[in-house]
Amino acid sequence: MYELIKQDGLAKRGRLHTVHGVVETPVFMNVGTAAAIKGAVSTDDLRGIKTQIELSNTYHLHVRPGDEVVRKLGGLHRFMAWDKPILTDSGGFQVFSLAGLRRIKEEGVYFNSHIDGRKIFMGPEESMQIQSNLASTIAMAFDECPSSVADREYMERSVARTARWLNRCKKEMDRLNSLPDTINRHQMLFGINQGGVYEDIRIRHAQEITELNLDGYAVGGLAVGESHEEMYRILEAVVPYLPTAKPTYLMGVGTPANILEAVDKGVDFFDCVYPSRNGRHGHVYTNQGKLNLFNAKYELDERPVEEGCQCPACRTYSRAYIRHLLKAKEMLGMRLCVLHNLYFYNTMMEEIREAIEEGRYREYKAKKLSGMA
Amino acid sequence: MYELIKQDGLAKRGRLHTVHGVVETPVFMNVGTAAAIKGAVSTDDLRGIKTQIELSNTYHLHVRPGDEVVRKLGGLHRFMAWDKPILTDSGGFQVFSLAGLRRIKEEGVYFNSHIDGRKIFMGPEESMQIQSNLASTIAMAFDECPSSVADREYMERSVARTARWLNRCKKEMDRLNSLPDTINRHQMLFGINQGGVYEDIRIRHAQEITELNLDGYAVGGLAVGESHEEMYRILEAVVPYLPTAKPTYLMGVGTPANILEAVDKGVDFFDCVYPSRNGRHGHVYTNQGKLNLFNAKYELDERPVEEGCQCPACRTYSRAYIRHLLKAKEMLGMRLCVLHNLYFYNTMMEEIREAIEEGRYREYKAKKLSGMA
Ligand SMILES: [Zn+2]
Ligand SMILES: [Zn+2]
Repeated sequence: MYELIKQDGLAKRGRLHTVHGVVETPVFMNVGTAAAIKGAVSTDDLRGIKTQIELSNTYHLHVRPGDEVVRKLGGLHRFMAWDKPILTDSGGFQVFSLAGLRRIKEEGVYFNSHIDGRKIFMGPEESMQIQSNLASTIAMAFDECPSSVADREYMERSVARTARWLNRCKKEMDRLNSLPDTINRHQMLFGINQGGVYEDIRIRHAQEITELNLDGYAVGGLAVGESHEEMYRILEAVVPYLPTAKPTYLMGVGTPANILEAVDKGVDFFDCVYPSRNGRHGHVYTNQGKLNLFNAKYELDERPVEEGCQCPACRTYSRAYIRHLLKAKEMLGMRLCVLHNLYFYNTMMEEIREAIEEGRYREYKAKKLSGMA
Repeated sequence: MYELIKQDGLAKRGRLHTVHGVVETPVFMNVGTAAAIKGAVSTDDLRGIKTQIELSNTYHLHVRPGDEVVRKLGGLHRFMAWDKPILTDSGGFQVFSLAGLRRIKEEGVYFNSHIDGRKIFMGPEESMQIQSNLASTIAMAFDECPSSVADREYMERSVARTARWLNRCKKEMDRLNSLPDTINRHQMLFGINQGGVYEDIRIRHAQEITELNLDGYAVGGLAVGESHEEMYRILEAVVPYLPTAKPTYLMGVGTPANILEAVDKGVDFFDCVYPSRNGRHGHVYTNQGKLNLFNAKYELDERPVEEGCQCPACRTYSRAYIRHLLKAKEMLGMRLCVLHNLYFYNTMMEEIREAIEEGRYREYKAKKLSGMA
């Protein structure tokens, strides 16, 4: 159950109550693709860096170790030793971006595993069954992510199919949640809005899926190559047609600036691989912009990545030390950068929530953006 | 200053007082080659796994980031953020095992860096200067590690040179410790016994270096290819000629069984890369022997690596989860295995100390060995 606590302009300050606890929004979900955050970060570590909700990838877990294995081990929460909320994606995005040859049919998608090439079929029912086996807190609907350059005609057909798939997802999820041996019988379902850069298709689809009264709604198919301005334009067009009284999730986004802008347009759930991926490359976020710790100028720099930061890296280690670790290819260097970056994102979300509560979001956003510029 | 608290047979229970605190012996030093334990383990982590003393490699740090850099950053303790004792090796072993072309002269060794091939010279004075820059708690003397198959004549000449080098090391260390801007003016020096498999050469050398009244003595040049039996024979021959009232360090050793046997012969300092290297390959130590977590039989195994183990891996994660992480090439898998293995070693040393204190070391050793067999 979602509670809208306060609005400041379109910016929403909310609270999602789940069977695994409460999520204060706006929130950034920390991505742990294969049931682990890349960079040697454990769920124990997540507890120390303000993580509220973890996100895992259905496709990856279906392929390895297999969702049946996870089910036998009691579901993702028990498998990873994480008792707070977990969101799983539907697998759709990976099928469309990672898999080799694939054929899209009304029933679903036929494709080959990117690991061993074996044939897999995934449709709305399969995606729900896999996510039910994983027993995440929130399941995402199975949708098609059409290419961002898809023409209008293809997009209309694709979105119509995604809408039909959503109905099947809901029906299957209801069935699974009613079974006695389902691990999480309170699994939530978020629908996904598609339509590429066509505002009218997006709006019509948003209106259609809103009628299903799902637990939340995502905007998908953005941040796939279009400009930031185009992404903002789409958000401004479509978010007003999604219910404010439900979570509003912008999938796969993005930079701190992207998040600050999207919050201003009514989005309150985010996820992105940037903080962990950039961290593994020694790129760290600060309120004065990103630093590349490989740079020679940090060789003798005894300051933490960011002065005053309370993350496990900054509390103890210097830029000079982390730079040395990165140069020496010590995994610890990556780990410390990833921990800092996730902490930076999670802390920014905390600041965002506070700013909305206090009715000064625009002011906060402007100041934060100008610092990082 | 070393305190011999108790002996049980030849097994020594001691206490080394240093400027960075006390080391209870027998002790296993946790190896952090390039000022970091491989496997994304930080000094913060070491505090949670019973580590008393960390070991770093002079050669690696001299090449990168450079000991002058570490000196400018306040020495290794400040660089790594570790306030307990650190031992640095002399660089000799790496020069003899890693470097390309090298020439050994009376003054020292000329060789090429294994990283960029540049020419480096290292002799006793240079090794002491580098270790003084690193400002470790304990510096090791610069010695030659002759091949384990070196003939008697070569070994005699080599050991005589190593003895001359030791005198130069002591003189240089005394000079460095007297300089006002030396970071650690209480740096200790351990001498190293050599002589390969020739007991008489070893014994004569041990008698010679004992006269220097150093802070501790190591047995070097073992665990380089000879059998375990041969190593034990050498220890039985030479350790009685090293002072019991000083630390007795067996360099680069070894398996849990090696340590249990060597303690019984009077050794009380150890270091080895096995726990971290094996951990990175998914091989974990238990009291019932080593497990290979890649093995399919752990796919659904919900037990921790070792029942009752209080390490950060076993307290929270299952064999099944760690196996998945290793299979998925998630760094977290390696990290958890390394943490467990180091904890296993450090805990075994704790048990060893207790058993000696209580005069039941032989009994403890027999039980521990039979469990692991
Ligand atoms: Zn930080
Ligand atoms: Zn353990």
